[in-house]
Amino acid sequence: MQKKSKIPEPTIARLPVYFRCLMDLKNSEVTIVSSEELATRAGVKASQFRKDLSYFGEFGIQGLGYPVLHLLDRISVIMQLNRKHNAVLAGVGNLGNALIRYPGFSRWGFHITRLFDKDPAKIGTIVEGITIEDIDKITGRLNAQIGIITVPPDAAQETAELLAEMGVKAILNFTGKKLEPGHGVVVRNVDLTHELAILTYHLSTLKGK
Amino acid sequence: MQKKSKIPEPTIARLPVYFRCLMDLKNSEVTIVSSEELATRAGVKASQFRKDLSYFGEFGIQGLGYPVLHLLDRISVIMQLNRKHNAVLAGVGNLGNALIRYPGFSRWGFHITRLFDKDPAKIGTIVEGITIEDIDKITGRLNAQIGIITVPPDAAQETAELLAEMGVKAILNFTGKKLEPGHGVVVRNVDLTHELAILTYHLSTLKGK
Repeated sequence: MQKKSKIPEPTIARLPVYFRCLMDLKNSEVTIVSSEELATRAGVKASQFRKDLSYFGEFGIQGLGYPVLHLLDRISVIMQLNRKHNAVLAGVGNLGNALIRYPGFSRWGFHITRLFDKDPAKIGTIVEGITIEDIDKITGRLNAQIGIITVPPDAAQETAELLAEMGVKAILNFTGKKLEPGHGVVVRNVDLTHELAILTYHLSTLKGK
Repeated sequence: MQKKSKIPEPTIARLPVYFRCLMDLKNSEVTIVSSEELATRAGVKASQFRKDLSYFGEFGIQGLGYPVLHLLDRISVIMQLNRKHNAVLAGVGNLGNALIRYPGFSRWGFHITRLFDKDPAKIGTIVEGITIEDIDKITGRLNAQIGIITVPPDAAQETAELLAEMGVKAILNFTGKKLEPGHGVVVRNVDLTHELAILTYHLSTLKGK
């Protein structure tokens, strides 16, 4: 396992939200924003926002607020959103197809450069300009640090190991299966069912009133 | 805005993870689990797991651990996963199509019962046994409390308001657009780009070593 950073995971998960809000402010040509205003936009308390930022340094100007461009720039460096990232995607099913066309990815500098599948009917076909390759015939390094895995759960672990061998350092896992890709590879699990379960929890709190 | 529950959002977000781990244990016929074992499976510290549970009551047996079935049952009640939930989906594009077929949903009791779109070419066609309806011609209550919104960003707000009028109380928002569906409706925003950004943050911490 890689060394854990001391910054809490929920803080890291909020950084993209702040980044997005700052982008909106920049597009509206706002130059200075208060912590209250930005926190409201991000849906958190101002104290939470200030605490999250405090892990990374001092950004605000006393009595004035945060310079939008400066903060945007700093967060983009912290999250490495100041440069392009190549990603490969394994498993060109329904979800894979949706992700290949997901408009947010390229807007933030993420580019899916190669597609892999096992299905002979898919291999060789072209999706959004990219030819689907046989995952069992990958050789050499992938020139991508990010792997998006949308294969069936049973194929998840072998796919993760394969991509890790080919140089992938970060995996976005949509399979619902826990992955152990090996030393030095970070995994982020996305289970969209969990999102619905979180909603039904909140439904119960609505009803309780 | 609805009254905020005092339970921290990250705690709520971890409940489905615990639920899933407990399901795995149940399927392996494990009857008692220690907080250490369950926390390891869930990818959190044991102290975090115990703290999360403490918001909901006492579940462990001193010196023994947690009875798997009992804890599973309690979490399923807390999250309302002990009953079925109907959901409607608006926007049958690539992502919508993927979600309609997402296997995890029905396994946890979520059923997509109606599909809506604006595209005349899609209206009337059948996806997974459900006929796509014209969203502008919905009348009456939907018999679903959950709405999944996968329409283009520009149509997000009007779609949310429409679904809320028809009785939807909880919205899973994939549009990337902030929604204000009105009083008494909870929204959960899913932005898959954020997941990639969180990964690239962790990539930077890997490289720093």
